[in-house]
Amino acid sequence: MSPGQSRPFDGLIVGAQLVTLDGEHGYAIIEDAALGWRDGQLAHVGPRSQLNGAPEAVASEVIDAEGRWLTPGLIDCHTHVVFAGDRAGEFEQRLQGASYEDIARSGGGIVSTVHATRAAPEEELLRQSLPRARALVADGVTTLEIKSGYGLDFDNERKMLRVARQIGHELGICVRTTFLGAHALPPEYAGNADGYIDAVCDWLPRLHAEGLVDAVDAFCERIGFSNAQTRRVFEVARSLGLPVKLHADQLSDSDGAALVAEFNGLSADHVEYTSAEGAAAMGKAGCVAVLLPGAFHVLRETRLPPLQAFVENNVPMAVATDCNPGTAPLQSLRLAMSLACTHFRLTPEQALRGATCHAAQALGLADRGRLRVGQRADFALWDISQPAQLAYWLGGQLLHSAYAGGVRVA
Amino acid sequence: MSPGQSRPFDGLIVGAQLVTLDGEHGYAIIEDAALGWRDGQLAHVGPRSQLNGAPEAVASEVIDAEGRWLTPGLIDCHTHVVFAGDRAGEFEQRLQGASYEDIARSGGGIVSTVHATRAAPEEELLRQSLPRARALVADGVTTLEIKSGYGLDFDNERKMLRVARQIGHELGICVRTTFLGAHALPPEYAGNADGYIDAVCDWLPRLHAEGLVDAVDAFCERIGFSNAQTRRVFEVARSLGLPVKLHADQLSDSDGAALVAEFNGLSADHVEYTSAEGAAAMGKAGCVAVLLPGAFHVLRETRLPPLQAFVENNVPMAVATDCNPGTAPLQSLRLAMSLACTHFRLTPEQALRGATCHAAQALGLADRGRLRVGQRADFALWDISQPAQLAYWLGGQLLHSAYAGGVRVA
Ligand SMILES: [Zn+2]
Ligand SMILES: [Zn+2]
Repeated sequence: MSPGQSRPFDGLIVGAQLVTLDGEHGYAIIEDAALGWRDGQLAHVGPRSQLNGAPEAVASEVIDAEGRWLTPGLIDCHTHVVFAGDRAGEFEQRLQGASYEDIARSGGGIVSTVHATRAAPEEELLRQSLPRARALVADGVTTLEIKSGYGLDFDNERKMLRVARQIGHELGICVRTTFLGAHALPPEYAGNADGYIDAVCDWLPRLHAEGLVDAVDAFCERIGFSNAQTRRVFEVARSLGLPVKLHADQLSDSDGAALVAEFNGLSADHVEYTSAEGAAAMGKAGCVAVLLPGAFHVLRETRLPPLQAFVENNVPMAVATDCNPGTAPLQSLRLAMSLACTHFRLTPEQALRGATCHAAQALGLADRGRLRVGQRADFALWDISQPAQLAYWLGGQLLHSAYAGGVRVA
Repeated sequence: MSPGQSRPFDGLIVGAQLVTLDGEHGYAIIEDAALGWRDGQLAHVGPRSQLNGAPEAVASEVIDAEGRWLTPGLIDCHTHVVFAGDRAGEFEQRLQGASYEDIARSGGGIVSTVHATRAAPEEELLRQSLPRARALVADGVTTLEIKSGYGLDFDNERKMLRVARQIGHELGICVRTTFLGAHALPPEYAGNADGYIDAVCDWLPRLHAEGLVDAVDAFCERIGFSNAQTRRVFEVARSLGLPVKLHADQLSDSDGAALVAEFNGLSADHVEYTSAEGAAAMGKAGCVAVLLPGAFHVLRETRLPPLQAFVENNVPMAVATDCNPGTAPLQSLRLAMSLACTHFRLTPEQALRGATCHAAQALGLADRGRLRVGQRADFALWDISQPAQLAYWLGGQLLHSAYAGGVRVA
């Protein structure tokens, strides 16, 4: 190809070992591979020997991976990274012997995060939240779901969602926003949960009109909102054409899985107490089970999600950090993968699918999560000697670089 | 002070919040502090207002901490970071259902690490080990203990200890070496553990003569070496004036704690099955209990170390990563602190002391682990809003910078 002619690829990586995850089982590895992209999409995924021409002739930019492993970019499909304030003090008080009641009496718990988040101006909320998102990206995340749910009034839920969008712009990654107005009952609605749900149902269309909402979530639990209240929020989402997901069956079997399946929801999340019937309903509805082993770990839970029922009902299992200040102070998706292996006995391959292709499905995104021509050029290069190391090492600096839409972001 | 005159400090940090850990209880915080050092030692630790002169007048280099928290440099007092090869495949096989016997039959287990470590030339062993040590430093470690124990013959134990020393030079941190020849029985001594102990007792003085040994350790357990065999190694250590420590009571009560106490050892490590009598003996001998929650976590153990007995007997508790390829693939000391809080219910302050002043004691080092005039200028600056965050966050990039002997290393 002569100079001046446009080359087929904007970028090309050669000498990588690809974990494509193409197909339903196995890592689907391509050794000594080449990965090319154009206009932010993968344009070549295959052995280097199948390239038509010398690397420099077919791509504007050529990177030698020097044998490194390359996976799809990680996808964290359940986080609460946008919040203000600090709850490490509660963590300390609990370990010093304080009860949850003691902490609530002294103004702690989710209420303290709501107060701090409401009090923070938008720029301050961004400033406090950005390092957490940056840490996730530094460990390989290129798509990040972020929920609202600490504002609990129109202006502050809106502020949280705006900050979530800004994080995407700042870091060059894809952020998917989820409206979680029905996260907790704010103090001003004490004793009036139904009235609060009225307000949430009123805010949702307005926030959606501003382009701030990609999906809708709720906390359905004895200590959260009832199935009937959740249903009301989901009805509004359905009327807007917005997909739903649910914090379901974390502390008790609340029939949350069946509820979100009834709405053809993207995912039921936590799901430790989901019944076999709930898993079957999820399977029929194509609903993903999002496992959150960080909260399980920190809360020292013992009830395991019904993994066997998920497998039998073809329910894909995703793995996410749940990064939040109360129950999952977790800033690494690889660490969530490791905890999923240790606590839930996922295999490293299941954990990796959980943080890539199954997480994409949990966000309703068909354009990422595997290495395949036509998918987004979102990928991560790792200093590892086999894919299982991603879930094996706790900590460590394994990421070499990460690309989102063909642009380096870490 | 006029130009040309020497200033009292080589370096000075102002505007920091110091966690000095001076004294036996509490963080011992100094707010709006100044920390000055000279010739690698702390020369001023106190409020900024007590500085005699403007910062620029008293120090060659002045750093504004901008309100960041500053702690003693972290000390990882029990690691096996020097090894070759990769055992993530075993981790994967176990999660796919293979038994320990299956893995041993297919050449896995510690034997595979011994083979790979023996096969690696010295430079290759360094190349493979360095990233793990670097990850620990990137999370705040400025003093690192490294054990031998995968060579299991003279030349390869020597090679491991030499690589450990080189890691210290490469990273600018202090490495303390421990000879762990009595780690496992090498294949060539199968059925002849006493003969192998003869060899270990022969190697130790020769390695010590080369300046490669700071302390001596053994694995005393039903599946390791007996108390009588351990005692023989300890006798040689005593004759050389070398301190001892012990992998003790991890899987059963082997009276390991009492044995190491009898030799006035630095520490008993693991200690899940240590008895109240063992804890009392440790207290009398001034022996530190080194808690290794990473192995506890990965092995999904349930037996907790006797923390109450340690507290009652004034046994200081240290916390370490135990970084090793089989039972603790852990590359972050902060993560070990977090696991110590979650699994063992240490408070964040206990965890921090465990990774600083108590870890120093477990290495026999009186010159570090607290911020106090005369101690080594080993410290870490953190992007946190309170000290409890160090053990609260799982993952995350909290370290701003770290200094060893007054020189920046991360
Ligand atoms: Zn959540
Ligand atoms: Zn060990």
